[in-house]
Amino acid sequence: MALSVGLLGFGTVGQSVARLIVERNDGLLALTHIFNRDIARKRVDWVPPSVVWTERVEDVLDADVVVEVVGGLDPARRWHEAALDAGRPIVTANKQLMATHGHALLARAAQRGVDLLFEAAVGGGIPVVRGLREGIAGDRLTTVSGILNGTCNYILTRMESAGLAFDAALAEAQAHGFAEADPTDDLEGYDARAKLCILARVGLGLDLSPLDVPCESIRSISDDDFVYARRLQATIRQVSRVAIVDDSVQARVGPALVPLTSALARVIGSQNLIVAGGTYGRETTFAGYGAGGFPTAVAVVSDLLAIARRAGGAPAAWPDTSQPTSLTGLQVAPYYLRLVVRDQPGIIAGLASIFATHNINIDAVLQEPGGTKERLPFVITLEACPTAAMDKALVEIQTLPFHVTPPLCLPVLA
Amino acid sequence: MALSVGLLGFGTVGQSVARLIVERNDGLLALTHIFNRDIARKRVDWVPPSVVWTERVEDVLDADVVVEVVGGLDPARRWHEAALDAGRPIVTANKQLMATHGHALLARAAQRGVDLLFEAAVGGGIPVVRGLREGIAGDRLTTVSGILNGTCNYILTRMESAGLAFDAALAEAQAHGFAEADPTDDLEGYDARAKLCILARVGLGLDLSPLDVPCESIRSISDDDFVYARRLQATIRQVSRVAIVDDSVQARVGPALVPLTSALARVIGSQNLIVAGGTYGRETTFAGYGAGGFPTAVAVVSDLLAIARRAGGAPAAWPDTSQPTSLTGLQVAPYYLRLVVRDQPGIIAGLASIFATHNINIDAVLQEPGGTKERLPFVITLEACPTAAMDKALVEIQTLPFHVTPPLCLPVLA
Repeated sequence: MALSVGLLGFGTVGQSVARLIVERNDGLLALTHIFNRDIARKRVDWVPPSVVWTERVEDVLDADVVVEVVGGLDPARRWHEAALDAGRPIVTANKQLMATHGHALLARAAQRGVDLLFEAAVGGGIPVVRGLREGIAGDRLTTVSGILNGTCNYILTRMESAGLAFDAALAEAQAHGFAEADPTDDLEGYDARAKLCILARVGLGLDLSPLDVPCESIRSISDDDFVYARRLQATIRQVSRVAIVDDSVQARVGPALVPLTSALARVIGSQNLIVAGGTYGRETTFAGYGAGGFPTAVAVVSDLLAIARRAGGAPAAWPDTSQPTSLTGLQVAPYYLRLVVRDQPGIIAGLASIFATHNINIDAVLQEPGGTKERLPFVITLEACPTAAMDKALVEIQTLPFHVTPPLCLPVLA
Repeated sequence: MALSVGLLGFGTVGQSVARLIVERNDGLLALTHIFNRDIARKRVDWVPPSVVWTERVEDVLDADVVVEVVGGLDPARRWHEAALDAGRPIVTANKQLMATHGHALLARAAQRGVDLLFEAAVGGGIPVVRGLREGIAGDRLTTVSGILNGTCNYILTRMESAGLAFDAALAEAQAHGFAEADPTDDLEGYDARAKLCILARVGLGLDLSPLDVPCESIRSISDDDFVYARRLQATIRQVSRVAIVDDSVQARVGPALVPLTSALARVIGSQNLIVAGGTYGRETTFAGYGAGGFPTAVAVVSDLLAIARRAGGAPAAWPDTSQPTSLTGLQVAPYYLRLVVRDQPGIIAGLASIFATHNINIDAVLQEPGGTKERLPFVITLEACPTAAMDKALVEIQTLPFHVTPPLCLPVLA
């Protein structure tokens, strides 16, 4: 008997999930219910006539398993709870829900003895949730990092390869459907942060609250920065990283300089890449298409097949998790500081004296040709120093009178 | 109750598996038996005193699950059969056994209702078996390709980066423990071929017989070839690839030119990388350390944890497999042909006339400075042509009288 599947949500991902199930026609999965608001305008003729189209969530609970691809915290959370309480396993692509309420929902699923699977919530079609949870479960992982947001990566790689300004790259991403009309969640790092929290749970056994993870926007990156980055044999990526360092946890989402030779630098366009670092297996990398209807649907259907093939067996156990005793941002890093100034005597001397006060060593001062007296960009690179010292120095630097735009400070990752 | 684990084999991998289990001390896995020949010389003091050291395979069947890390076809096959018949799940790193007898052994395991897991047989710690089998099970995969042999990759990347001759790079690999005293299995592609057959089973549902997959040696690659490859914006890697093309299957293991910008070119040293191509999720990549005691042990222990966590549930089903109706090597490719000749008039004319006969278009003729009249290397690149035509042309070219060393012909991968 095929596992009957009820779909909550018939947008891009929901439609792709339906397509995959219908086209597989494998006797393991059967699409039986589709829920959406204004369901009438959603009807398509390529699903079996037996499918129930509905605007009532409860109808979908008649299926053996519920797929939630609506997203958002509410009402998705209530729907999850209702489905679990009705003994229905859930497969979801909802990263915000799993990042914020994953602990409670997984506990509820375990109580009810049903599965709650969410491969599609991180990295689209890349099987990184299963990879961390089962594939390298035998290792003791200490770091998970990577490029988790395809929108930011599209924008940054277009700035890099085509020399576009930020706004032009964003507009292009929106025109191609890689960015939403309101791109805040992507640009500010909230989307990547939710995914990072999910990976921290699955890979490191950590319950992080997304709001506790420091996020920095990519909005302040300019085309100048890619020129300087290249001179430093580097480029700029939105990097998400969580690491267990002794007894504390460090996590951060935001733009950073990465060497051109690194795996992160070579992630182009809307792709994603995740690197897990372990005590025994060293680095293991997962990469692929992190968004889009079909890649995400592959993850959903793979989760459905796991449930179908288990056929009544107990759901797979999730590793135990705990809250970190201490969660901070990055603690120490070399830094890239880009300034745009009105030229005047004493700028470097003023900056150097601030850095000296905070015991930060200047590595190099770089200036590309082409600036004007009224708008002169240049870059200072700093040797590795405590982030706290750098933050204090930055506050002082921002009060200096010569800035044309606010200084941009990025960590330089090895 | 912890799952008791019996180890068949206490070499590098076996010792690493034992270390991981002992250091985890997680209440899920308990090491209880260690089998090896000449067991007395193997004893170590860091395993629990309760462990039974034995030279009798049957003793190990007292454990709940058997780990086989001896390798080779015999007697490993008999041990597997005995363990399965005794109702013991098996976790193995034995690629030759799984490639050659995987079909029969998996059928036997299914009959007995026990697991036979082999994540460690391909790609060391990289969870690609589980990734293909479960992680992207929802996709319809059509190709699996990658770098599956760390020894070849170490040798080729050392030739590339340090300009070493083949023999020097091989000697270095042996000195560092990356190559065996008898490196035949690695260099000729037999090791990679076994892994490719396993991935074809898991990812594409294909039963391939390893002996049917064409293999080419990397022994004939010279340092000259890296000079020419670089001029073509490429490098040389041992590439393993299997693809479903219409109703037939194409598979090959051997050296090939790959663009410097490709993921394959960027796999350095003893690392492995596997790319799966699917209808829905496009390309998904898995990379990491493909060999070594601890990475391989991570894969073994991850498989053990999967069995421990399932705790009595049914073993996961393997996808159905079938034999291909037709299995061939590469069918069409652009080619790189390197010749080393005694210079004389008419060489290019003679070659061009052979290519014309076989309808093969010359793309370019390259000659780096530094050759002598007695030993003149040069390269001809050919536009994409049927491999059969290229093979015939090569036979004729080999009969020409001016060769100092046999011509080397490599496909150029996109």
